[in-house]
Amino acid sequence: MSSDIHYFLAVRKTTEALCEHLLLEDYHLQPMDDVSPPKWHLAHTTWFFETFILKAFSDYHCVDPHYDFLFNSYYETVGPRWQRAARGDLSRPPVADIYTYRAAVNTAIQQRYDQLSSRQRMLLELGIHHEQQHQELLLTDLKYSLGINPLFPALLSTEAPQSCLSGPEMPSWHRIPPGVYTIGHEGDDFCFDNEKGLHQVFINPCDIALQVVTNREYLAFMASGGYGHSRYWLSDGWDWVQSEKISAPLHWHQRDGDWFVFTLYGLVPLDLEAPVTHISYFEADAYARSQGARLPTEFEWEVAARQCAEPLDRENPAHFLEAGQWQPVAHAGFFGNIWEWTSSAYLPYPGFAQDPGAVGEYNGKFMNGQYVLRGGSCVTPVSHIRPTYRNFFMPDKRWQFTGIRLARCVKE
Amino acid sequence: MSSDIHYFLAVRKTTEALCEHLLLEDYHLQPMDDVSPPKWHLAHTTWFFETFILKAFSDYHCVDPHYDFLFNSYYETVGPRWQRAARGDLSRPPVADIYTYRAAVNTAIQQRYDQLSSRQRMLLELGIHHEQQHQELLLTDLKYSLGINPLFPALLSTEAPQSCLSGPEMPSWHRIPPGVYTIGHEGDDFCFDNEKGLHQVFINPCDIALQVVTNREYLAFMASGGYGHSRYWLSDGWDWVQSEKISAPLHWHQRDGDWFVFTLYGLVPLDLEAPVTHISYFEADAYARSQGARLPTEFEWEVAARQCAEPLDRENPAHFLEAGQWQPVAHAGFFGNIWEWTSSAYLPYPGFAQDPGAVGEYNGKFMNGQYVLRGGSCVTPVSHIRPTYRNFFMPDKRWQFTGIRLARCVKE
Amino acid sequence: MSSDIHYFLAVRKTTEALCEHLLLEDYHLQPMDDVSPPKWHLAHTTWFFETFILKAFSDYHCVDPHYDFLFNSYYETVGPRWQRAARGDLSRPPVADIYTYRAAVNTAIQQRYDQLSSRQRMLLELGIHHEQQHQELLLTDLKYSLGINPLFPALLSTEAPQSCLSGPEMPSWHRIPPGVYTIGHEGDDFCFDNEKGLHQVFINPCDIALQVVTNREYLAFMASGGYGHSRYWLSDGWDWVQSEKISAPLHWHQRDGDWFVFTLYGLVPLDLEAPVTHISYFEADAYARSQGARLPTEFEWEVAARQCAEPLDRENPAHFLEAGQWQPVAHAGFFGNIWEWTSSAYLPYPGFAQDPGAVGEYNGKFMNGQYVLRGGSCVTPVSHIRPTYRNFFMPDKRWQFTGIRLARCVKE
Amino acid sequence: MSSDIHYFLAVRKTTEALCEHLLLEDYHLQPMDDVSPPKWHLAHTTWFFETFILKAFSDYHCVDPHYDFLFNSYYETVGPRWQRAARGDLSRPPVADIYTYRAAVNTAIQQRYDQLSSRQRMLLELGIHHEQQHQELLLTDLKYSLGINPLFPALLSTEAPQSCLSGPEMPSWHRIPPGVYTIGHEGDDFCFDNEKGLHQVFINPCDIALQVVTNREYLAFMASGGYGHSRYWLSDGWDWVQSEKISAPLHWHQRDGDWFVFTLYGLVPLDLEAPVTHISYFEADAYARSQGARLPTEFEWEVAARQCAEPLDRENPAHFLEAGQWQPVAHAGFFGNIWEWTSSAYLPYPGFAQDPGAVGEYNGKFMNGQYVLRGGSCVTPVSHIRPTYRNFFMPDKRWQFTGIRLARCVKE
Repeated sequence: MSSDIHYFLAVRKTTEALCEHLLLEDYHLQPMDDVSPPKWHLAHTTWFFETFILKAFSDYHCVDPHYDFLFNSYYETVGPRWQRAARGDLSRPPVADIYTYRAAVNTAIQQRYDQLSSRQRMLLELGIHHEQQHQELLLTDLKYSLGINPLFPALLSTEAPQSCLSGPEMPSWHRIPPGVYTIGHEGDDFCFDNEKGLHQVFINPCDIALQVVTNREYLAFMASGGYGHSRYWLSDGWDWVQSEKISAPLHWHQRDGDWFVFTLYGLVPLDLEAPVTHISYFEADAYARSQGARLPTEFEWEVAARQCAEPLDRENPAHFLEAGQWQPVAHAGFFGNIWEWTSSAYLPYPGFAQDPGAVGEYNGKFMNGQYVLRGGSCVTPVSHIRPTYRNFFMPDKRWQFTGIRLARCVKE
Repeated sequence: MSSDIHYFLAVRKTTEALCEHLLLEDYHLQPMDDVSPPKWHLAHTTWFFETFILKAFSDYHCVDPHYDFLFNSYYETVGPRWQRAARGDLSRPPVADIYTYRAAVNTAIQQRYDQLSSRQRMLLELGIHHEQQHQELLLTDLKYSLGINPLFPALLSTEAPQSCLSGPEMPSWHRIPPGVYTIGHEGDDFCFDNEKGLHQVFINPCDIALQVVTNREYLAFMASGGYGHSRYWLSDGWDWVQSEKISAPLHWHQRDGDWFVFTLYGLVPLDLEAPVTHISYFEADAYARSQGARLPTEFEWEVAARQCAEPLDRENPAHFLEAGQWQPVAHAGFFGNIWEWTSSAYLPYPGFAQDPGAVGEYNGKFMNGQYVLRGGSCVTPVSHIRPTYRNFFMPDKRWQFTGIRLARCVKE
Repeated sequence: MSSDIHYFLAVRKTTEALCEHLLLEDYHLQPMDDVSPPKWHLAHTTWFFETFILKAFSDYHCVDPHYDFLFNSYYETVGPRWQRAARGDLSRPPVADIYTYRAAVNTAIQQRYDQLSSRQRMLLELGIHHEQQHQELLLTDLKYSLGINPLFPALLSTEAPQSCLSGPEMPSWHRIPPGVYTIGHEGDDFCFDNEKGLHQVFINPCDIALQVVTNREYLAFMASGGYGHSRYWLSDGWDWVQSEKISAPLHWHQRDGDWFVFTLYGLVPLDLEAPVTHISYFEADAYARSQGARLPTEFEWEVAARQCAEPLDRENPAHFLEAGQWQPVAHAGFFGNIWEWTSSAYLPYPGFAQDPGAVGEYNGKFMNGQYVLRGGSCVTPVSHIRPTYRNFFMPDKRWQFTGIRLARCVKE
Repeated sequence: MSSDIHYFLAVRKTTEALCEHLLLEDYHLQPMDDVSPPKWHLAHTTWFFETFILKAFSDYHCVDPHYDFLFNSYYETVGPRWQRAARGDLSRPPVADIYTYRAAVNTAIQQRYDQLSSRQRMLLELGIHHEQQHQELLLTDLKYSLGINPLFPALLSTEAPQSCLSGPEMPSWHRIPPGVYTIGHEGDDFCFDNEKGLHQVFINPCDIALQVVTNREYLAFMASGGYGHSRYWLSDGWDWVQSEKISAPLHWHQRDGDWFVFTLYGLVPLDLEAPVTHISYFEADAYARSQGARLPTEFEWEVAARQCAEPLDRENPAHFLEAGQWQPVAHAGFFGNIWEWTSSAYLPYPGFAQDPGAVGEYNGKFMNGQYVLRGGSCVTPVSHIRPTYRNFFMPDKRWQFTGIRLARCVKE
C-alpha cells in the first residue's frame, strides 16, 4: 500500500538521492518566480507532513517555529508565508539544517505511524504523492536554473540519452468511435481530488495520433516561418511570441546554424527523432493549427490511452524518473517521456468536492486559466502516475517537459 | 432576412440614435484599456463594412486612407493599427467627420447592394451583427466611463427602472435529466462561427436555478464576510480581491451606510430585488461556492434554457436594448437583463472551422483564458441574441452587465 | 503693477484666446501623464484664484463643491484630488461649464479687488504668473497631443515661421572672468520663491557660446552616430536611449530620407538654421560631450546673460508667446525661442524659504532630480520671464521647447 | 605607496578575510537589484585587475573566457555582460573556482609587477581602491541580504558595539565664515577623478552641526508624526513614503512597543545615543526641514571638516572597517561611523575630465539624480577615505550606513 511506512521512507530517500549531483551552490537557485530552489523543495515537502499530520500530536514539538512561515507554499488557511518569488533569497537556515529537519520529521512519522487515524493515513499518502510531484519539480526547476547560466553546466556527468528509433514519416492515427465514455478515477487506489467524480462524457468522432510530434517535425514548422504566421496563433499566444521574442522552444540554442539543446547532461546536439519538448500551450496549439489538426481534449486522450496504450509498466519504467534517463527519446506510447498538452481547460469534474481541511486548497483553487496535460514525463516517478492523472499549467509555461500529440475531428 | 438593406440601414441608424444623449465631450472617453470611446465604435463598425466589402469594388474610393490604420481593431491580416489603449487620445478626425464617414459608407453599400456576391452578403450580415455587438459595448463602455467620474453624470434624464416584483426567498430549481444532448446552432439563420459545429454533449445529472441571484442575496454574502473568506475563492480570484481591494460589485458606492449604484440614469439607491450585476467571474464563482452550489456549464445553461425558458419574444423585448430600460430589474427568465457567467472555458466546439479570410480572426483567436456567458443583457439588441449565443470575457472583467445563476450537481 | 485688476483680466483673456484654434474635441487630450488637457488648464488656473483668494471671503459661494477635488493639482495641504494621469478621463463638467466657472471667478475677483489684503494681492500676482505658466503648458501639451496623432493636425492654419538668418559655422564664445558674482532676484518686482535668496557664487573661468545649437549641427551629431556612442552619454541617458529607442529629437519624422518636424503649424520640413528643440537633458548633455564641451551651469548662464544679452524687450517680444510665432527660428540671444538646459540640478538657493501657507508647495517640494532651464521659449509670455527665472524639468523630458547652449572650462 | 605590491596583496587578503564569517549558502544572495552577491564581489574585483592590467600582456592567459561576460559590471566599452539584477542566479562557477581565480590573478600581477607601465600602476592603484569600495559593499549588501531573512541571522557572533557616551541635548554649531574656499583634491596622492579639478567655491554664511543626529532624536521626529506631515517632504519623497509604506529607517523592527535594529551582530535593541543610520536622502531632508534646518552642501561639509575635524587617524581607525566594529556608535567627528547625506547633487567639478580608456566610465557617467555623501562609515576602509572623497547614492537608497548632519543658513 502506498502509505506504507517503508514506502514513505523510500520516497523520502529518493528525493534526497536526486540531490546527490547538486553543489551546495545550487540549493538556492530561483531565476524565475515559477521555479523553487532545491532547498525549498526539500523543506516544503517535509513541512507538509509536519503541518498536516504531526502538529495534531500533542507530544510533537516542531523543529523550528519559523518553518511554518518559511515553508508554507500557498495554504491560506494555515497562515501567512514568505513570498513565493523570494524563496531563493534565504541562505539561512543552511542546507544542513534542512536535512536535519527531514530526518527529524521522518523519525517522528515513524514513531507515530501506528497511531495514525485513517484520515491521517490519507494525509500521509497525499503527502507522499505531494513529495513525488516535488521530485519532478526539483529536477525541472533545476534544469531551468542551470539552463539560463551561460556556462550551461551539466547536472549529470553521464552521456545524454539519444533516440535509437527513427519515427514514421507521417503519424498514424487511432479512430475513437463516437459515444458516451466514463471519465475519471475508479477504485480505491490513491488519486487526487481533481480526478474524482466519475462521470460520463460524450466523445464526438475523432482521430488521435499514435506518435507525438518530433523535433524534426517541429523544426520544419520553424523553417516554414511558423512563429511568424499570425493565423496559427491564439491572440494571447501571438502577443506572447512578440513580446517575449520567442522563436524556438525553451532550452534550444543555435550555434553556427546547428541546433543544440540544454539538458541535465549539458548542451547537446538536437536529437531529431526525440519528441519536441519545453514548449508552451501556445506553441503546441499553433503547431497543431499549422498542420490542419488540433490538440486532443483530455477526455479524448484518456479514452485513447485506455484503448491503445500498453498498460503502465511500473516494474520496468523506461521513460520515467526511475529509469534515470532524464531527457526524452523517441518512443511510441502515451505514458512517460513528455507531458502532453490537451485542449481542455483545467476545470472541476461534475461533483468535484473540496476537502473541508486545509488540503482542500491543494488542487481546486487553481482551476482557472490553465490547461490539462496528460501522460507524465521522463522525470515523473512512475509510481505517481495514472491514466486519469491531470497535470496543469498556464499556457505560456515551458519549463516542464511538455510536448504535442495531435488530434483531428472526423465528419461522420 | 437579416442582411436586407433596410435592416442594415436600420441597425446603422440605431447606433447613432444611442448617441443622442451624448455630449460631444463624451465621444473620446477611454478611462481603461478595455473600453473604447464612442467615436471609435462609430468609426470601427463603419470600417468593417468598408474593409471587408467595399474595398473589393474597384470603383470604390476609400473615405480617408488613414482610417485603415486608425480604425482596425485587431485584424493582423488586414495590417498594422493604432494601439488599442490609446484610442481615446485622438481628437482628430473630429466627430462630424465620423458621421460623414458613416453616411458615405452607408450610401456606398446601398449603391452596390444588388451586386453583392453571396460571400459579401454573408459579410454584410456579419457586419450588422458586429455593429450590434458594438451597440452594447458603446453603452457599457460609456457607463464605465461616466461611472468613474466623481460627478456621477447621468446619461439619461428619465427615471431609473425599478423592480416591481420581489423574488422568492429561496431559488426554485429545475432538474436536468442526465443524457446526451445536442449543442450548438442549427439551421440557416445567422450565427457566429463559434456556435457552429452541432455536436453531442453528455449532461450529468444536475439542478439549475430558475432565478438569478439578486442584490439582496449578494448583500447577504457581503455581510457574512464573503470577500474575506479565502475558501470561497479561486487562487487567482483571491489575489485579484487583495490586489484590487475589491469589496463590492463595480459601480456600487456606500454613502452613510446605504448602498447606491451608478446607472446610466445616474446614482440611484440599490434595487434589492434586481439581479446583482457588474461582477466578475471570480465573484460569481465565489458566491456560488459560498452557497454550496456552482455555476452551470454553458451546456447545462443551453439545455435548461431550451427546456424552461419562454421562447425569445422578439416583438416585445422587455429586457433588451430595444425596450429602452438600460438597467436590469427583477425578472425570472433566461434571456435579457444580465449576461450569466457559466463555468465553461471559452473553447472551440468540435469541428470549429476558422474562416479562411481576415474575418477568421473574429472569434477563434480569443479562445484562451475566457469564460462563456449566456443570455444577453438589458443593452443587448434582441435581434442579435440566440439561445446558442456565446459571449465571453476574462474572469476579472466587470464592466458588462454580468450576473449569476446557480447550479448544483445531483447524485443519481 | 502686475497684480492690477486690468492686468489680471487681460491675462485671463489671453488664456482663452489661446484656445480659439481648438476644436471641442481637443479639450480633453492627455496622451501621457505629463500632459494636461486644455480643459484642465482652464479650470485649474481658475481654481487657484478661487482656492487661495476667494474662499477666504465669507460671502463667496464656490461655483461647484466638486471642483476642489477635480482641479487641485498637487496641494497636499488643500486636500485630496483627482489623479493626475486621469485628467483626460473626465468629460464632465462640459467645456462650457468651465468657461462659466472662469467668468464667475473673474467677476468675484473684480468685485472684491479693493478689499484684498496685501497677502491676497501677493497671491493674486502669484496666480497671474501661475496662469501664464499654464498658457505655455497649454500650448506645449497640445503640441504633444496633436503630434502623436498620425494625421499630424495643425493647430494653426498660417504658415510655419522659417529662419531667415543662417548661423556662423562655428559658435563664437564669451569669456566669463572668474570671480564672485551675485545670483538671484533683486528688487521688489515679482519673482518666484525659488529665485529669492540673493547670494554670492564663485564662477570659475569659462567660455559660454553666444549661439545655441542649430538643427544643422544636431543633424551632424546624429549622422556621426551620436546616439550610438555610449561614451557621450550619462548612464541613465544611455539606458533611456536604449529602452525608449531614441534616435532623433521628439517631433522629428523621416520621410524618404528627408527630415520633417511636427509644429503647431503641422508637419513641415526641418529648418536647418533654427535651434534644435524638443530634446532631453540627456541629449543636450551628450551633444555637448561629443563637442568636447559641456552645458553651462545656471549661474554661468545668469552671469553671461547679464553681461551679453540685450535687455529683455517687453514691448517688441519677437521670440515669445505674444509674437504669435510658436516655433523657434534662428536668433542670437539669451531670451525667448527655446528653454536652455543648464547643468545645474534644481536645488534651493541659500536661505530659500518656503511660504507657510499651501502655496509653499508651489516650487520647493520639486527640488529633486530635475535640472534648471533658463531663458524662456517661443510660447513663454514675455511679461512672465526674467533673467533670474528658473524653469526645471526631469532629464528625460522633451515635450517643452528645450534646446542647447554650450559652455567650456578654461584653464587659467 | 598605495600601489605597492604588498599593499595590493594585503587589500586582496582583507577582502577574503571579510568572508570568513560567511556560510557557503550566503555567497549568492541578491534579494534586490542594488545588492550584489558576495561571490560576485570577489570575482568582479578580480576581473578588474585582469581586464584593465593583465589582458595587455601577451603572455597572460585569461582564467576563463566566460568571466569577461559574467563579471563585467557596467563597462560598455569592454563589452556585453550578464544582467545586473540576476547576479545571484548563477550557482556556477562554484565559490571555490572564484577563490582560485583570485589567487591566479594575484600571482599574475605579482609576476608582472616590475614590468608595469606608469599607467598600469595607476590602474593598479585604482583597482585597489575599487576593491576597497567593494569591501564596504560586500558588508552592506550582506547586511541587507541577511536583514530581510525572518530569522535575522547574525553574521558576527560577538556582541554588538554600544554607545558609551550620551550626546548633548542640543547640537552645537560651527559657524563657517563666508568667503571663497578651495574645493577638491590637491596633491599627488590617489584620489578618484570626481574629486579632481581643484576650484573655488563661495560659501555663504552658515552653521554646521558638530554632532550627527542620533536615534533618540530621530525617534522624537517619528513620535511627532514626521512621516505623516507632507510639508516636511519633497514631493518625490512623499510619494516614496506613501507607495513604500515607510515609517521607520531600514532595519528597524518594533516588538511589543520596543524598537530593535538588525545589525551584522543580529537583532539588538536600538542604541539611542548612536547616530541614526540606514535612512534615505528623503528622510534626511525631511528630518532637517522638521527642525527648521537643512542638510549641508558638500562644499560646506568639506570646509567644516577641514576647519573642525581631527585629522584622519589612519593608525587608530576607531570608526572604520579596520576597527572591526561594524555598527556605528556615538562619536563626535566628521569621519567614519556613517556616511552623511549632503544637499549637493552629484555633478562634475569644473574641469572634470573623463579618462579616455574604459575606466572613464568609472564615475562620470553616474552624475545624474544622485546626492553626494561625505565622511565614510564604520565599514569603510580607513586607507580608502579622504576629506575630499565623494560618495553618491540615489535619494531613496537606504542599505548603506547613511545618516544626517544638520546645517542652517545665517543672515549676515
